[in-house]
Amino acid sequence: MVRRTRLEKDYCPSARSLDVIGDWWSLLIVRDAFDGLTRFGEFQKSLGIAKNILSQRLRTLIARGILTTAPAADGAHHEYRLTDKGRDLFPVMVALRQWGERHLFAPGEPHSHLVDRETGAPVRIEVLTADGRPIDADRTALLKVAVDDDRDDEAKPA
Amino acid sequence: MVRRTRLEKDYCPSARSLDVIGDWWSLLIVRDAFDGLTRFGEFQKSLGIAKNILSQRLRTLIARGILTTAPAADGAHHEYRLTDKGRDLFPVMVALRQWGERHLFAPGEPHSHLVDRETGAPVRIEVLTADGRPIDADRTALLKVAVDDDRDDEAKPA
Repeated sequence: MVRRTRLEKDYCPSARSLDVIGDWWSLLIVRDAFDGLTRFGEFQKSLGIAKNILSQRLRTLIARGILTTAPAADGAHHEYRLTDKGRDLFPVMVALRQWGERHLFAPGEPHSHLVDRETGAPVRIEVLTADGRPIDADRTALLKVAVDDDRDDEAKPA
Repeated sequence: MVRRTRLEKDYCPSARSLDVIGDWWSLLIVRDAFDGLTRFGEFQKSLGIAKNILSQRLRTLIARGILTTAPAADGAHHEYRLTDKGRDLFPVMVALRQWGERHLFAPGEPHSHLVDRETGAPVRIEVLTADGRPIDADRTALLKVAVDDDRDDEAKPA
């Protein structure tokens, strides 16, 4: 059995996304960037990882177009900021947060909250139909791409 | 600098989620389970990984309460099915899909589509306020948990 190493060519957008951001260090850096962290030292303190590893992760995120870097106003530091592509990961972060809130905390256990800055009320994430009604997994269907390779029959029983 | 190894105790729900499902093999198995795959051979064919590795991943997902297993109707196979906790990962999968669709495909490049079974129209995911209006990252704020350890000042500049 050959290990599939070509997720980057996969026709499933979820698979491609996991190929690009599917290590949790990347998403923790993205989370911190959403929280307003911009400097190397801030990321290092938040994540508690070695400088060389953090450097490599930041470089990867820049190469993938998720972060961008520029000299800070003080001229002595670099700032790392989310690109538009990086900011579009917001629903991914909120979806992970919502699942964690529901399933990985004991009742009453404290956790951070993501709120509407204006009202202070928690935000939520929902899968919606084209006309804006909530929809669950059972009422969706996956339309696969018919391709002329070993993946065109992947849903058939082995 | 000590590497932080206790994400499972983190007060950020996103971090805990990443600790539990933040390797992409787990999420690819979850994706396939959403697509209706239930049998070991089906997952193996779809993912193209060695049997021993797949076995280990499936065991981990069962131990984490995301999959459950039961004998199939034919008595000769086991079926792997998402638990309610596993099905609650649906927004995570859709968020990853939506980001991939937007940023990881060339214009016109074919990809699979997740649609409303009833209308055939694509579904989407959105972050919403308590009263159901779309909200973007800039209009949210993170309320952290004040804790009496090294993490209570993680957002301050280093």
